[in-house]
Amino acid sequence: MTGASSGRFITFEGIDGSGKSTQARLLAQALRDAGQDVVLTREPGGSPGAEEIRRLVLEGDPDRWSAETEILLFTAARRDHMERLILPALTAGKVVICDRFADSTRMYQGLSRGDLRALVDTLHDLMIGREPDLTLLIDMDPALGLERARQRQGAEERFEDFGPELQSRMRAGFLALAREHAARFRVIDGNRAIDAVAADVLACAAPAPA
Amino acid sequence: MTGASSGRFITFEGIDGSGKSTQARLLAQALRDAGQDVVLTREPGGSPGAEEIRRLVLEGDPDRWSAETEILLFTAARRDHMERLILPALTAGKVVICDRFADSTRMYQGLSRGDLRALVDTLHDLMIGREPDLTLLIDMDPALGLERARQRQGAEERFEDFGPELQSRMRAGFLALAREHAARFRVIDGNRAIDAVAADVLACAAPAPA
Repeated sequence: MTGASSGRFITFEGIDGSGKSTQARLLAQALRDAGQDVVLTREPGGSPGAEEIRRLVLEGDPDRWSAETEILLFTAARRDHMERLILPALTAGKVVICDRFADSTRMYQGLSRGDLRALVDTLHDLMIGREPDLTLLIDMDPALGLERARQRQGAEERFEDFGPELQSRMRAGFLALAREHAARFRVIDGNRAIDAVAADVLACAAPAPA
Repeated sequence: MTGASSGRFITFEGIDGSGKSTQARLLAQALRDAGQDVVLTREPGGSPGAEEIRRLVLEGDPDRWSAETEILLFTAARRDHMERLILPALTAGKVVICDRFADSTRMYQGLSRGDLRALVDTLHDLMIGREPDLTLLIDMDPALGLERARQRQGAEERFEDFGPELQSRMRAGFLALAREHAARFRVIDGNRAIDAVAADVLACAAPAPA
């Protein structure tokens, strides 16, 4: 799954409530306005099969899957998403913007329920392979992120419901991941007005504006 | 997932229509009649979560999952089945009889849709680990097996619908697998009356009758 592609693969990462979904939408719109062919997608999910797996994982009793089974299900969903949507779009020269990707699995499944980071990485290398060309980490105060996430709680409460301690650990984990993969990561301060954050995002994603 | 256990883990394998499900039931009954504590289960499925994954894989358009995604989904189902049902029963000293297990994935996902056997084995070693103590391969003439399987076609037709050429390849593959893992495999001629097959099965599974 590492075939050559002419498009660009951009992912957004961050804790719940960091505003990354909003920023992904704004970036997609800005690039489209600039004439680029953009596919905006999200994980878990993003393709019809992966969305079915998403429902299987996120709905129902939070304890019904072990961390290991959950990692396998997310990897299956990501494989489907890559095969059916992301790689074909990249091969066609499009910009693919994805709200969460493998880095979220590295954090939420790799850290939050035990030390399974090595397992997540092994499965990623074996079944997915490809990393994003650019990952925008929207960094956010954990307490503020949690408050925002709680305001929009829906049926899929599982990962938002883990509390402030987890949010703080996830924030630190994402920042460590950004240092580990410094070549593809850019960290953006999300504790500001949406427009200010969006301007930074656009500057990172389109470094040489026309 | 390779923790010590005092029970015995027996699996049945074979092509579709080989009669292995019938034989699994008969063996379970015979061992119960002899006073043993038996758990009879099946794959794909076997635990509530794994049964949900089974439905996801087996229903709908046969091409909706790639072979690689399907292997991940079956591995997720097997992990759940192992954690929730098989290992606890073995730890409690029970006999677990399972209708199909990892060898079926080695054959159907590892051979039928491309040469993915190495991937199946790698995922098994990484996520499952444990092999059965005894695997009973019910060997059967492929044409006869296919005729039997077609007589009971239901909603889950996918794997039965691959035709005589696949049945012949699967039979040869199972026999090769039995040679490869000779210590745990026993091959039983399934081209006979049910009672005659069941007698051989019981002799293999209960080598020292009281």
